[in-house]
Amino acid sequence: MLFQVNEIMLNKERNVKLTTMLQSVSEDLGKIKKRPAVLIFPGGAYAVCSDREAEVVAYPYLQAGFQAFVLRYSVGEYKAWPNPMEDYEQTMELIKEKEDEWNVITDKIAVIGFSAGGHLAATAATCAKTRPNAAIIGYGALTQEIVDFCGPNMPYPVDCVDADTCPCFLFAARDDSAVPVYNTIDFERALYNYSISFEAHIYAYGEHGFSTGESNMAITDMCSRVPHWVKDSIDWLYDVFGTWNTEGLNKPKCSAKLDGNAEEFLSLDCTIDYLRKQGKAAHQVLSGAFAAVEAVARERFGNEESGKLVLAALKNMNFRNLLILIGQPEESIAAIDAALCKIPNEKMKT
Amino acid sequence: MLFQVNEIMLNKERNVKLTTMLQSVSEDLGKIKKRPAVLIFPGGAYAVCSDREAEVVAYPYLQAGFQAFVLRYSVGEYKAWPNPMEDYEQTMELIKEKEDEWNVITDKIAVIGFSAGGHLAATAATCAKTRPNAAIIGYGALTQEIVDFCGPNMPYPVDCVDADTCPCFLFAARDDSAVPVYNTIDFERALYNYSISFEAHIYAYGEHGFSTGESNMAITDMCSRVPHWVKDSIDWLYDVFGTWNTEGLNKPKCSAKLDGNAEEFLSLDCTIDYLRKQGKAAHQVLSGAFAAVEAVARERFGNEESGKLVLAALKNMNFRNLLILIGQPEESIAAIDAALCKIPNEKMKT
Amino acid sequence: MLFQVNEIMLNKERNVKLTTMLQSVSEDLGKIKKRPAVLIFPGGAYAVCSDREAEVVAYPYLQAGFQAFVLRYSVGEYKAWPNPMEDYEQTMELIKEKEDEWNVITDKIAVIGFSAGGHLAATAATCAKTRPNAAIIGYGALTQEIVDFCGPNMPYPVDCVDADTCPCFLFAARDDSAVPVYNTIDFERALYNYSISFEAHIYAYGEHGFSTGESNMAITDMCSRVPHWVKDSIDWLYDVFGTWNTEGLNKPKCSAKLDGNAEEFLSLDCTIDYLRKQGKAAHQVLSGAFAAVEAVARERFGNEESGKLVLAALKNMNFRNLLILIGQPEESIAAIDAALCKIPNEKMKT
Amino acid sequence: MLFQVNEIMLNKERNVKLTTMLQSVSEDLGKIKKRPAVLIFPGGAYAVCSDREAEVVAYPYLQAGFQAFVLRYSVGEYKAWPNPMEDYEQTMELIKEKEDEWNVITDKIAVIGFSAGGHLAATAATCAKTRPNAAIIGYGALTQEIVDFCGPNMPYPVDCVDADTCPCFLFAARDDSAVPVYNTIDFERALYNYSISFEAHIYAYGEHGFSTGESNMAITDMCSRVPHWVKDSIDWLYDVFGTWNTEGLNKPKCSAKLDGNAEEFLSLDCTIDYLRKQGKAAHQVLSGAFAAVEAVARERFGNEESGKLVLAALKNMNFRNLLILIGQPEESIAAIDAALCKIPNEKMKT
Repeated sequence: MLFQVNEIMLNKERNVKLTTMLQSVSEDLGKIKKRPAVLIFPGGAYAVCSDREAEVVAYPYLQAGFQAFVLRYSVGEYKAWPNPMEDYEQTMELIKEKEDEWNVITDKIAVIGFSAGGHLAATAATCAKTRPNAAIIGYGALTQEIVDFCGPNMPYPVDCVDADTCPCFLFAARDDSAVPVYNTIDFERALYNYSISFEAHIYAYGEHGFSTGESNMAITDMCSRVPHWVKDSIDWLYDVFGTWNTEGLNKPKCSAKLDGNAEEFLSLDCTIDYLRKQGKAAHQVLSGAFAAVEAVARERFGNEESGKLVLAALKNMNFRNLLILIGQPEESIAAIDAALCKIPNEKMKT
Repeated sequence: MLFQVNEIMLNKERNVKLTTMLQSVSEDLGKIKKRPAVLIFPGGAYAVCSDREAEVVAYPYLQAGFQAFVLRYSVGEYKAWPNPMEDYEQTMELIKEKEDEWNVITDKIAVIGFSAGGHLAATAATCAKTRPNAAIIGYGALTQEIVDFCGPNMPYPVDCVDADTCPCFLFAARDDSAVPVYNTIDFERALYNYSISFEAHIYAYGEHGFSTGESNMAITDMCSRVPHWVKDSIDWLYDVFGTWNTEGLNKPKCSAKLDGNAEEFLSLDCTIDYLRKQGKAAHQVLSGAFAAVEAVARERFGNEESGKLVLAALKNMNFRNLLILIGQPEESIAAIDAALCKIPNEKMKT
Repeated sequence: MLFQVNEIMLNKERNVKLTTMLQSVSEDLGKIKKRPAVLIFPGGAYAVCSDREAEVVAYPYLQAGFQAFVLRYSVGEYKAWPNPMEDYEQTMELIKEKEDEWNVITDKIAVIGFSAGGHLAATAATCAKTRPNAAIIGYGALTQEIVDFCGPNMPYPVDCVDADTCPCFLFAARDDSAVPVYNTIDFERALYNYSISFEAHIYAYGEHGFSTGESNMAITDMCSRVPHWVKDSIDWLYDVFGTWNTEGLNKPKCSAKLDGNAEEFLSLDCTIDYLRKQGKAAHQVLSGAFAAVEAVARERFGNEESGKLVLAALKNMNFRNLLILIGQPEESIAAIDAALCKIPNEKMKT
Repeated sequence: MLFQVNEIMLNKERNVKLTTMLQSVSEDLGKIKKRPAVLIFPGGAYAVCSDREAEVVAYPYLQAGFQAFVLRYSVGEYKAWPNPMEDYEQTMELIKEKEDEWNVITDKIAVIGFSAGGHLAATAATCAKTRPNAAIIGYGALTQEIVDFCGPNMPYPVDCVDADTCPCFLFAARDDSAVPVYNTIDFERALYNYSISFEAHIYAYGEHGFSTGESNMAITDMCSRVPHWVKDSIDWLYDVFGTWNTEGLNKPKCSAKLDGNAEEFLSLDCTIDYLRKQGKAAHQVLSGAFAAVEAVARERFGNEESGKLVLAALKNMNFRNLLILIGQPEESIAAIDAALCKIPNEKMKT
């Protein structure tokens, strides 16, 4: 069979089940054998796993060429943390173990979660042992008050974001009265703070639990933009994982990180402010460059303060971009970068 | 399991298989129990059934809430007509038999066929014993030369269109070098001649065999509009079958026929020309109306010939629309219609 | 002429110009006479008004039926605050004065601003004397560091949001290296804090200054979603202003505020937390309702703390929605609302 | 002014007016100076020029970067043929004369016509002295009965299609009761017969006169696909004219003709059937190739007749494509092509 759907009991005691929705290899479908995959977590306040956000979510990703999985994780009497997270880790292990049988590219796995499932997806993205490679989070429970409402001892994703967090795609409705939209906004801010790549869509209205936004499942009044998240998230996954065709995979267009602040060694891909806070070695390499920036700013804006204002305004810009902007010669930029690359990064909170 | 995929051997000797892709009932998904369905016929020149146009086509319709079936009909050494048509008829019987188990609304079944599969879909739509309720036909083999190339004794769909043909959605690429696009054009004309409702999209380029037009399956150069047929065909099915939501089904927005020419009795929904060619009884009822039209035309366009020109130009318009257009009073229109409805339709070729 | 474009010199000394792009009344276009309007502020760091974000932005809104204006406000040597704001106020006065000649519905005017023009739009939305009725803000300079970079003494929109702020539509690219995307994120949070309705789209990449995202103007690498903001903003304006057709205007689908916290008198449309912080009179009216919520929570979640957790988690929900959620009878809800509506609102910061 | 709208009286006696809607050159908009253009013909049965299909149609093309013109041609008492055609020719001359002032690329001009204006656009495309470079034709009056209804002595576009006809984009609604949809279908067939490139969209319902399909102008019930023609026609123009950006123009993706049948000399780009009907010289060059095709067909399909069937089925395919399909070596294909290119084309009706 070209397409097979099966249910695997992952944990009988806690009734944890994995639905596998797998596309087989076929000569008619070209040279592609293994495929990127999505792993879906339904919502339901950790009380249930709603069928509204399960297999129905998989279809568009299957159409787009992905393999798909739905995890019905520990809920209700079994929801005690870290049970759901263990279910996720167990699933990832299983997928990696079966990569040849299931035809999955195991470093291109995206989690997709809704509401409480969005909490699980965000937790996987920010503090799992085995991180996913991308996370799509719909009206997720991401901040303290809402997470506490789901159950005790659960991590607050908004506080767990770190430099290893994978790229995220966020969506929610402004008028969500179950999980207030500041959950999504504050998570955007946390991702920004750690230079993580993301995309976010907050729709004017659509309330909570709209799933794919398909009209046949509608329970709330949704603005016309709500269903767009599905195709947008697929195009975003293509940006992050790369597209593929019958000949093979292409390179991603969108890198996971916005700068080099989290790397082992410094570089001009680090942000201006981050480089300023480094030690003596970095200062020596960069002093000329900083002076050049200030000179250009003074000249262009005509007063002594301009240099500082520019550096404050653009503090989150990569230093490389700034040097290009002010017209520094290519060789000079390359030389500074080479020097920085020898200096170990004194990792700091931003 | 909420979603189940199975393969049924319909005819072991001829290797005919039906893949069933069925969504179960769930409280979470609302009151909807039975669903409209699509039945997919892959292409392959009746030599093979291509995996490119099989399960991958089902996913977007599943997302839109339909049940889905893929029929791998008789091909290769078993392609002799009417084998493939028998496979279709057998499938329809089986679906109707299992409607309660499979949760299918059996008078809302659309066939979807590509290339040779488009031939089978069009044949089902125009001359099967059990007709489908809608047909989606992609780069279909619909005219003599191309059909003859597929095999002997196969019907030419373009010549089989009749008043009972179901609404059709057609698509193809202008530069198709395997099945020239006049196949689709001539089928449009045949549907027009029989007052059948249809929608048709001919894309500037995309060649033959683009399937859903998903980039990961692309083998030809496609213009940006090609993949639109998928969503457009779904919105069209909603128009023809009616949308549904968690509360139940809504009424269709688009009727299957453009006029009343194929009904048992006459009415003002018949076209002008059709009514003119009817016998004495119809003439007596309509003579006043024809005179009124001519009088209005003379007055508006100022010469004796205008009446005839108007009636020639609008010969395919419903007479009702014309009477509304020239401002006849409602009661008068109702009276004419009531009189016509008693006169048996002398069925004629248009 | 059905469509006229003119340039009006608003302030010769400061070279402030208003381009009017006005659709005339025509019988062919139905009963619509006056139309909603958009007022566009190009970007350019208050140094220039860029042609990239001027008339080209108006076309899609004209197509959608709006009147359009482009304001080239005080920049360069004339940028000193409040000059640009005065230009805006002068424009609004002029439009209101000419509403009959220009066929503008003067309580349906949206400002659209980019970058520094986004600063002006956001300032108009949050602290102008005459507020617009909606604001569309693209990669806007909205926070202190970036605003200071544009010039001294300019207000920081993110700090000016108040309960009278109009609904906002925000968009930006994650990788914007000129105006970091936290400007947009922090403005979303401020709008949330004041219960203002908004929609927001942050695209994975597109850098700064992409304007409408039309390919013929592209200067940066943009992800495929970037150009969507144009149509999305139009559909959002239809939600906020109401659609119209040849027969007249329809009611808006999306209200400007999410709750009643900013009204003169209390009501059940106020949020739970807001009502809790009101005085004795409100407490007396609501004590029974609070007890009912806690009882339901205890029963459903089974421990003493549940009531508090629910009320904390849902503190931003309208109390009306919560009472519906826990199944309070309609009459009881109406009675509580009627009692609250007599109690003056002790306006508080949220 | 960056964007200027003016009205030019082309013929005072007949009240013929040209509205020019012109985008100026600006450094902010990149190196692009001259632009492709659209020339719009409103409908109105040659009795009037409707404002519904005039300036409102121009906006999306302006947004897409085109220059735009609206021609209010001779109608009513001045409609006598060839007055409207003369108005068109006069306009084209004027545009070519003013190409530097108006910044128009004069070999990238598309006409856009609706209903009677569609008749004028199709007549320009098929029999004008100065042909446009592309034609977009909406619910056009293209066949005898409907054209006769508009006025005497007007050409029937469906009969005028020739090998020099420009690429066409057609759209109409299936339920059009004013201009029956066979007008569009029969025009598609005529374009096919002359190997002209085209794209065509027939929507299930939308009646006559829907213009851009914008909701604010709706007078009829339109299916959701109707408004798509606007963006689709722009993307098609980009395919036919080439896209452009701030750096300059790119090459078109879609050629105007499907084969080489209308060229001075023969080539392998001619269709199979066309080459078969040529004289002795061509036969000599091609005899080996024909034999190769028949041999491959016999081998693959296993009987004597296969060769003929294949050649009949694929008679409209370019011979080059067929030779590639059957695996002929590149040098052999090049040699045949070189020999054919020396043989004058005996031009024949297809």
